[in-house]
Amino acid sequence: MAEFRSTQIRLAARPTGWPTHDDFETVEVVHPDLAPGQVRVRNAFVSVDPYMRGRMSDARSYVAPYGIGDTIAGGAIGRVVESTVDEMPVGAVVLHQHGWTDTVQDEAATFRVVPEIPGLPLSLRLHILGMTGLTAYVGLTAIAGMKEGDTVFVSGAAGAVGTAVGQIAKLLGAGRVIGSAGSAEKVALLTDKYGYDAAFDYKSGDVRGQLAAAAPEGVDVFFDNVGGDHLEAALAEFNDGGRAALCGAISVYNSTESVPGPGNMSNIITRGLTLQGFTLGSWLHLAPEFQEKMTAWFAEGRIAYDETVYEGIDRAVHAFLDMMRGVNTGKMLVRVGEV
Amino acid sequence: MAEFRSTQIRLAARPTGWPTHDDFETVEVVHPDLAPGQVRVRNAFVSVDPYMRGRMSDARSYVAPYGIGDTIAGGAIGRVVESTVDEMPVGAVVLHQHGWTDTVQDEAATFRVVPEIPGLPLSLRLHILGMTGLTAYVGLTAIAGMKEGDTVFVSGAAGAVGTAVGQIAKLLGAGRVIGSAGSAEKVALLTDKYGYDAAFDYKSGDVRGQLAAAAPEGVDVFFDNVGGDHLEAALAEFNDGGRAALCGAISVYNSTESVPGPGNMSNIITRGLTLQGFTLGSWLHLAPEFQEKMTAWFAEGRIAYDETVYEGIDRAVHAFLDMMRGVNTGKMLVRVGEV
Repeated sequence: MAEFRSTQIRLAARPTGWPTHDDFETVEVVHPDLAPGQVRVRNAFVSVDPYMRGRMSDARSYVAPYGIGDTIAGGAIGRVVESTVDEMPVGAVVLHQHGWTDTVQDEAATFRVVPEIPGLPLSLRLHILGMTGLTAYVGLTAIAGMKEGDTVFVSGAAGAVGTAVGQIAKLLGAGRVIGSAGSAEKVALLTDKYGYDAAFDYKSGDVRGQLAAAAPEGVDVFFDNVGGDHLEAALAEFNDGGRAALCGAISVYNSTESVPGPGNMSNIITRGLTLQGFTLGSWLHLAPEFQEKMTAWFAEGRIAYDETVYEGIDRAVHAFLDMMRGVNTGKMLVRVGEV
Repeated sequence: MAEFRSTQIRLAARPTGWPTHDDFETVEVVHPDLAPGQVRVRNAFVSVDPYMRGRMSDARSYVAPYGIGDTIAGGAIGRVVESTVDEMPVGAVVLHQHGWTDTVQDEAATFRVVPEIPGLPLSLRLHILGMTGLTAYVGLTAIAGMKEGDTVFVSGAAGAVGTAVGQIAKLLGAGRVIGSAGSAEKVALLTDKYGYDAAFDYKSGDVRGQLAAAAPEGVDVFFDNVGGDHLEAALAEFNDGGRAALCGAISVYNSTESVPGPGNMSNIITRGLTLQGFTLGSWLHLAPEFQEKMTAWFAEGRIAYDETVYEGIDRAVHAFLDMMRGVNTGKMLVRVGEV
């Protein structure tokens, strides 16, 4: 039997502030023979996500930090190339959390078989048809309780989650959907492709003023991927009873010092606002409901998406660093190879 | 018919920062004859509350600001001394929102008859049996969703709301109740009289360190009357899924500049926390449920309370300023006279 090897990207050191290439190392691994109950998988795509920055620090969080020397765990999709398990035969497409590696070998229970969708790339399972879409859906529905007619504001709206949020909000009956993004090109994309009613470039002017202009009747729901001045602007423009789903705070992930919160926290009281943070772990029971809706919307041609794809597992760190700087539009992915 | 006069305390100017006596004026009013549908009331007690500071500023809030020249509106209780309305006869005890005045004359619909409780002072209707108690109950139940066994942290716990929160939390099955207060005497009162399991003096050391020591297993519910460093400490010590009922932020009410929020807002996301602000206006439908429970607890002798009572309507401003500085223990009231 031919040797089965992996090229894996591992955490070499905990980043202080902005991560650099030196915080990672590339390792070649030769796997032992497959044991009963195990499968071998060749990855097609691995996911690159903002939350990974949190796991690189040694801070208490909802998931344990990566250990030094650990392969960067995260979503990935591939195909079984060797198997000891009847239910997971060679050729099956599988989702898993083994992360930044070109191939992987482990217990079958750590993989989940998903059907191929004719004509659609496997990569969609890592974003709009997967965790990214579910994140958008959970935040809007279970967390923010979006109602028909609501004005919805989405920060970092041209990212993978943000492009999904805007579309799902409109499909669920939002009245007006407003997005912020970090370039004129992304702003144009939000209104031209993703159905946003208004959008602005947060690098070209103050967030609060631009939000106020875009939301003359105030904001009912805020889906936050950015934090910082975006959260402060939302608190300023919220209508009474406004709800914020706090999903990400990419503006502060790489800060080495504590970043002060909004200066208008008292609006939370006077306007009866709710700020709720969430991570998907507590909301996976909504996945079937989401899958049913999203599959139907997708089949009806009502869902657009973008991918920014870097080629080769060796470029995973590059992709991650560029994503932290906002280089990507839509979902940042690494294509490992054809499977 | 004898002339019917009121001594009223009115807003003379909008305070900048800490209010002073110069921001108020005392006015004598001679009322016209009683019109059909009206009643005359002699007040027993008028309420002095932190939220009034907000109404003195010309800022958007859940209630309109006081107008310059307006009598300071707020809770009061008195007795009808003259009436044109059969349902509100002379001698009836009435609650109302006409505020800082010794007597008042207005449409009967602006008053509400409440039964006298033998042996108990009328003043209780302005706090533990009234809005103050309801605020504590709503915050713990409807807002924070307190569950049996929860560890509950209450800031400004020796105030009118805080003393109610601690007791209601224990009666509803909280596991451990922790309070902060602004003096050693108040801290002793919390554990000796109000059933707090632990308490600390926030003026004698850093809030976070003291909270961490008092809550070794973390905080599940935070009832906030203070804001600022108390909110930051709670965010630091929250368990996953923690809920904050934001009721007041007396630490920032008199700031003339924007006060930065907590430096650890990202914990809201990583721990799946919920911060919800509230004011009673949206929750008055819970008053019957609260009244039933509180009346029973009270009858069983399970409710303690404190009042800080200043004598004479002329001292309402003095009482208000002292309350803002934390001079009171329990409910701050002005006794207008015997009725």
